[in-house]
Amino acid sequence: MSAIITLTTDYGSKDGFAASMKGVIFKTNPQAQIVDISNEISPQDIWEAAYILRSAYSHFPKGTVHLAVVDPGVGSGRKPIIAVTESYYFVGPDNGVFSLIYQEAERIRVHHITSAHYFLPKPGPTFHGRDIFAPVAGWLSKGIASGNFGEEITDYMKLNIPAPKTTPNGIEGHIVHIDRYGNIITNITYEDIKALFPEGVDLGVTSVSLAGKDIKGLSKYYAESAPGAPGAIINSSGALEIFMFKQNAKTALSVKRGEAVRLMVSR
Amino acid sequence: MSAIITLTTDYGSKDGFAASMKGVIFKTNPQAQIVDISNEISPQDIWEAAYILRSAYSHFPKGTVHLAVVDPGVGSGRKPIIAVTESYYFVGPDNGVFSLIYQEAERIRVHHITSAHYFLPKPGPTFHGRDIFAPVAGWLSKGIASGNFGEEITDYMKLNIPAPKTTPNGIEGHIVHIDRYGNIITNITYEDIKALFPEGVDLGVTSVSLAGKDIKGLSKYYAESAPGAPGAIINSSGALEIFMFKQNAKTALSVKRGEAVRLMVSR
Amino acid sequence: MSAIITLTTDYGSKDGFAASMKGVIFKTNPQAQIVDISNEISPQDIWEAAYILRSAYSHFPKGTVHLAVVDPGVGSGRKPIIAVTESYYFVGPDNGVFSLIYQEAERIRVHHITSAHYFLPKPGPTFHGRDIFAPVAGWLSKGIASGNFGEEITDYMKLNIPAPKTTPNGIEGHIVHIDRYGNIITNITYEDIKALFPEGVDLGVTSVSLAGKDIKGLSKYYAESAPGAPGAIINSSGALEIFMFKQNAKTALSVKRGEAVRLMVSR
Repeated sequence: MSAIITLTTDYGSKDGFAASMKGVIFKTNPQAQIVDISNEISPQDIWEAAYILRSAYSHFPKGTVHLAVVDPGVGSGRKPIIAVTESYYFVGPDNGVFSLIYQEAERIRVHHITSAHYFLPKPGPTFHGRDIFAPVAGWLSKGIASGNFGEEITDYMKLNIPAPKTTPNGIEGHIVHIDRYGNIITNITYEDIKALFPEGVDLGVTSVSLAGKDIKGLSKYYAESAPGAPGAIINSSGALEIFMFKQNAKTALSVKRGEAVRLMVSR
Repeated sequence: MSAIITLTTDYGSKDGFAASMKGVIFKTNPQAQIVDISNEISPQDIWEAAYILRSAYSHFPKGTVHLAVVDPGVGSGRKPIIAVTESYYFVGPDNGVFSLIYQEAERIRVHHITSAHYFLPKPGPTFHGRDIFAPVAGWLSKGIASGNFGEEITDYMKLNIPAPKTTPNGIEGHIVHIDRYGNIITNITYEDIKALFPEGVDLGVTSVSLAGKDIKGLSKYYAESAPGAPGAIINSSGALEIFMFKQNAKTALSVKRGEAVRLMVSR
Repeated sequence: MSAIITLTTDYGSKDGFAASMKGVIFKTNPQAQIVDISNEISPQDIWEAAYILRSAYSHFPKGTVHLAVVDPGVGSGRKPIIAVTESYYFVGPDNGVFSLIYQEAERIRVHHITSAHYFLPKPGPTFHGRDIFAPVAGWLSKGIASGNFGEEITDYMKLNIPAPKTTPNGIEGHIVHIDRYGNIITNITYEDIKALFPEGVDLGVTSVSLAGKDIKGLSKYYAESAPGAPGAIINSSGALEIFMFKQNAKTALSVKRGEAVRLMVSR
């Protein structure tokens, strides 16, 4: 069993919040290997956490415990949960942060964490990352079975995730994330595009529109695109991405998350 | 004995300063487990380092070595020190960065680090984090007794930390920290508030004033507060905190560290 | 053999890119000890990565594998390489990011990585950090010999690194880096300065000019310099650095990387 525990939080790297969680984990399991997926999620941005966790989690060894704590409802009625898939454990608040995991997993089992003897003594109402989720992750990583933490539930929360719409000549999607480089990532996947070409994909006849710009064809790699012009590419997660070589496409195109992106086929 | 070493520095995460310290630690003790509490302390802000270290240190296992290097006086006469409490070691410059540890610890022993054979060869005058503190922390984590590094001293430096003032009907304190979310943390503690209510705490009759605003009562959790209105809460360190649910209270109230905060009781 | 692997990338800490690399490394070598040198390199800034890697790499134990992934040409013809020195392995793209290592190493051997069975299955054209460099670093850290990854090459890329020019009365160099504190680091070294004084160094007779300012003499430590006035110092890497005590010299002097700096001797 792997004793890797990952963190995806909006705690930042300055205030020591993530560090307090790590201290608690090491108190529970001194053998744990802790890896930050991201502590730089925008404050309270559950979708961003869901998106970034999804892009990284499957690259970790089987048995990894993925902690995700973006938790504006901390201390209120929202449940603490463990979600168990074929290969991983996910620990965090039941506010939809695991929605993309639920969507991808072949099997999923969700437990409502109620066994308070796994918590820090006297957990407060403002920092469940430290008082509840960290020690539960520590115990999970030591091999305590997920069933020991509480009853299975089926009414766990899922974010409403709009799928791209396929029309005879194209796909309508939207921007789901913008990364550090200013690359603009959409919810249109290579699988969606393939479905438009029952007789074999021809990326040369596609064009991508967003923010009033049209991009003809898809690039194979970033450096292929002309300087100063936006390009489109299938990225490392299999999604359609708009970029500018060595420049920031987000700034150049002035777009933001949620805006429409259209891929058209002109045969 | 735990071989965990934590880092609290103003070195940032870009320039590789903290990484050089980690390399040196691993050269000294390949078994060390290194955890960043924060490398994002504002440059030269000794108080901020003291505050953030205090909020996290006690969550680590007994025996942890806490390194704190915010060190504008590096290379000058200021002493390198080891402070030893019941449960932890603290290594850094004698500039007050451990003041809040001295205040909390039941017993404290401070050593002036002078045994140069534990340093890197030829330590320079500008980077004691790498040349002195990192190797000393490495050796401490291997079990070298603190007395081996130098003589005990009693004239170590303490920051002047103004305590909140209790009046018959309330407490006057100030802002000690503002966190990533814009939450405003004060030096008024739940213990201070309890002392106002010899016959049992009634948080409903309290009100908090800062920046010309009055907040009636205390919230139990963040989501309890009305959108757009500031709330007050006892936070995860037992301190009075002013927040705005899913918003940045610091920006909304335009306050900064040091400003006055008053808690009143209207019986 | 050390199983330490360091990361120097422009992936940032928000998007989970560096975390995906770490997951892949742990899948390959669960015993690896991973340390971030920096994931905050400015996007596509190969020189900055080269500079920061150089300032930190030699502080790590012998055998450490240093991964550097600033890779605008990913997916194009640029080669993936392993550079081997007396003490370390370096893994990354052949775009000059290891130029300062080549300059410092007594012996260097560079391999073109071609053995695809060490890669993730089906590596894509946009994220070789995850698909190629991370698993190769993992295998290297497990003891696979560098020769197994591909043929030795001699035509690897080196950045053009202008050396400072020594005149009879001084040295003309330039700014190579500006750090988090706003300290301005030049390519003039203490070795260069020593060469001006065949009969013994006298730092008192030197003066440093940049941005229209003259600084007389060199400080021994930061706190020695008068408040509000820039000082010059030999820094922890043996380079001439311009600073302002407890202030940001970059902001005060409005300089940027590449600008000229002159050190003069007035005997």
